[in-house]
Amino acid sequence: MSFWKQFRRKLFPSSKDRQFSKDIASIIGRPPKNLSLYELATLHSSAGKISKKGFRVSNERLEFLGDAILSMVIAEYLFKKYPHQNEGFLTEIRSRIVNRDTLNKLAANVGIPDLVELQDKNQTKRKNSIYGNALEAIIGAVYLDRGYLFCRKFILVKIVNQHLNLDTIINTDSNYKSKVIEWAQKENREIEFRSINETDTSNANEFEVTLLIDQLPVSEGKGTSKKRAEQDAALKACQILKLH
Amino acid sequence: MSFWKQFRRKLFPSSKDRQFSKDIASIIGRPPKNLSLYELATLHSSAGKISKKGFRVSNERLEFLGDAILSMVIAEYLFKKYPHQNEGFLTEIRSRIVNRDTLNKLAANVGIPDLVELQDKNQTKRKNSIYGNALEAIIGAVYLDRGYLFCRKFILVKIVNQHLNLDTIINTDSNYKSKVIEWAQKENREIEFRSINETDTSNANEFEVTLLIDQLPVSEGKGTSKKRAEQDAALKACQILKLH
Repeated sequence: MSFWKQFRRKLFPSSKDRQFSKDIASIIGRPPKNLSLYELATLHSSAGKISKKGFRVSNERLEFLGDAILSMVIAEYLFKKYPHQNEGFLTEIRSRIVNRDTLNKLAANVGIPDLVELQDKNQTKRKNSIYGNALEAIIGAVYLDRGYLFCRKFILVKIVNQHLNLDTIINTDSNYKSKVIEWAQKENREIEFRSINETDTSNANEFEVTLLIDQLPVSEGKGTSKKRAEQDAALKACQILKLH
Repeated sequence: MSFWKQFRRKLFPSSKDRQFSKDIASIIGRPPKNLSLYELATLHSSAGKISKKGFRVSNERLEFLGDAILSMVIAEYLFKKYPHQNEGFLTEIRSRIVNRDTLNKLAANVGIPDLVELQDKNQTKRKNSIYGNALEAIIGAVYLDRGYLFCRKFILVKIVNQHLNLDTIINTDSNYKSKVIEWAQKENREIEFRSINETDTSNANEFEVTLLIDQLPVSEGKGTSKKRAEQDAALKACQILKLH
């Protein structure tokens, strides 16, 4: 949209714009400066448009940006909240927070679904990462609209503090190894957890494990015990095999 | 280190501290405020210490933080530099920038290797991601020491502008599909690229492909053509199988 169109739109907003602006303000806590960013953030590719220059326009680029911002803000949050946990713990807890399920739930709690523009709600409902992705796109829009510090505060105050139960996330002791083993039995696959090396320096007690499925190395895990390294490798295999 | 010890150290630095402070300043462009952050960032786990409270101390936590910051800054950089490229392109170019090889080269260019504290240079040399990881840890230290805006500028000016040849990175047309096929022939594996769905909406021409190895779904790819989706899936498989 040209500068003048945006300017006119800001001076004389339509009633639809006013409502949308209110909706966004209720999510991010302040009125948006550049409404078109949020419009783009809530535009699913199924309803995507082709721009004058022939480019496909949807929220996927903003989702890419927002995903990176969310990952970083959560990384810093966990880094400071758990000063005595190693990077394996931090990585795992973050991946539980930014995974598809958690993001979809957060998006629903925050009130994203009503705002997302889809072509056909029933058809696209099956693709269940739509709302989590839109939440990430909105994070990208907030960053571009109001800068890093505001966006960081938005994530920490409006999302993490209000809607995320970190204790539950940490204590959900998902046994990924048994998930993979169960799957392998059902699919008649051979599974092996193979130790790569056991660091023999006295102060660094780190284990590394490769998970092989039918002799094919599918993932690697690290941890302070063999069991943890196996869980880590199994977690990554679950992500690859989409066992959730 | 206690506050008073740090304070004393700042007031009366040892000659070793003064030299280290100079070295860091020559990398980040300003003298460090909190030297111990950079000390931690250059402490590889092979030379890691056990703290008084029994925690293993090394640069791995800072590496986790710095990795997230780098990913985000590069995401924003690419997002703004390529306004008409889709998220698949942005994701791929970013992964080429933040991969092990590129980071190691960047670390060498920036002058990280001389600073890293290892237990035994020869023994640990084989683990070739040490310096790239230390670069990420230093990015984490810069963020904590001097805040987001300084850190972002450090990454963009001192790393991206000075040492990264983006054109080469983009034009390196790695043919991941042929890499995977070659590997499969050598390892006597059966490979299949299976189309998941071809979105039939007129405006979104998106292809999705699953790569199966011996009937095991190993990765998924997306793209605006079937060929691109296959390359995308093959790229991910290369990462999983460590074919570089």
